[in-house]
Amino acid sequence: MKELPEPIARLVDELKRLPGFGQKSATRLAFHLLRQPAEDVERLAEAILAAKRSLRTCSICHNLTDQETCEFCRAEGRNGKQICVVEAAQDIVNVEKTRHYQGLYHVLGGLLAPLEGVGPEQLNIQSLLKRLCAQGASAPEAHQPRAGASGGEGNRVEEVILATNPTAEGDATALYLAKLVKPLGVRVTRLAMGIPLGGELEYADSVTLQHALDGRREL
Amino acid sequence: MKELPEPIARLVDELKRLPGFGQKSATRLAFHLLRQPAEDVERLAEAILAAKRSLRTCSICHNLTDQETCEFCRAEGRNGKQICVVEAAQDIVNVEKTRHYQGLYHVLGGLLAPLEGVGPEQLNIQSLLKRLCAQGASAPEAHQPRAGASGGEGNRVEEVILATNPTAEGDATALYLAKLVKPLGVRVTRLAMGIPLGGELEYADSVTLQHALDGRREL
Repeated sequence: MKELPEPIARLVDELKRLPGFGQKSATRLAFHLLRQPAEDVERLAEAILAAKRSLRTCSICHNLTDQETCEFCRAEGRNGKQICVVEAAQDIVNVEKTRHYQGLYHVLGGLLAPLEGVGPEQLNIQSLLKRLCAQGASAPEAHQPRAGASGGEGNRVEEVILATNPTAEGDATALYLAKLVKPLGVRVTRLAMGIPLGGELEYADSVTLQHALDGRREL
Repeated sequence: MKELPEPIARLVDELKRLPGFGQKSATRLAFHLLRQPAEDVERLAEAILAAKRSLRTCSICHNLTDQETCEFCRAEGRNGKQICVVEAAQDIVNVEKTRHYQGLYHVLGGLLAPLEGVGPEQLNIQSLLKRLCAQGASAPEAHQPRAGASGGEGNRVEEVILATNPTAEGDATALYLAKLVKPLGVRVTRLAMGIPLGGELEYADSVTLQHALDGRREL
């Protein structure tokens, strides 16, 4: 005898495909949904469908958006001289939460992973280079970053901040991009690695500690 | 500047209402869904809606079902002499997994919790008593359980197994039910409490150990 009525079993099967869900947690969530008022459940289902149907990628930076270009590329007040390169759209949320960055973004859509068949052509790298070249074409010989150049050539990109994860793939992708971007006369930086706030030296792994030493700053 | 496009923000808000989801896990799940193929996402949304729309409670035992009565109440091969009383429909799944119980079920729909305004009238207790009386009316004087009475009065309920959680509310509800059911001449039992399989005496709390002592069995 099967243990669940078919509609629940089907719902559990679908929920099990979500990350972090097994048979038990999916079953629990399914029964939770069945206990909720019908209008709550329908609102959830509609939110899922609406998000999936209405969102597409920004034609400039590949961030998720419900319009032709994303809110950052459209915005007036952002600093067009900086582009922060991230692996995925959700990374932008975290950078924005710092309230410490006013530049633009570029979403790679993944990281280089040759063993899994992800090469440069699978990532949004060409479009990044185009963004840099289109604006920098007038001064390809300028190899030095010009800090504080508030006037001059308007929104020419002066710095590309590589904000990929400090993992093997993230590092390899950052190195690959740096090699492509530097010859265009654009400053290339990478997020600092070190001990997280509130972390303890005792528990830091030696590679992190090594990065923290290398990146030490004058007080 | 808001950090998420509106459709994602709305989806995150809806996902945050699910048990165990906070801002971070809901955001992660939302972006995961947006990365999936459209047909997978639509199948999930439809499974949610279909389950919610097609399921109702069994008119006999209040289990979830997509028909008038649930699969257990409909089934031919189940032992109608036993009713296992559980708090919620999902508990039936766990009892069934033991493959050790062939009787029927009754779903209370909660536990007595006077402080939260849940009294006997909010639970499916009247319908349980009706199930017992309807069949037991012909022999209300029989106060002794008749083990192994395979013939006789057909499906007269002989045993009510109280399978509520061994918590304060579960215990109180079980005691309350026992007081109501015993006078009907039905044997009332409760799931054994003790040390779980693979558990260690060293880590068992003293109340559990006390129950394990009280419930000790001859070898």
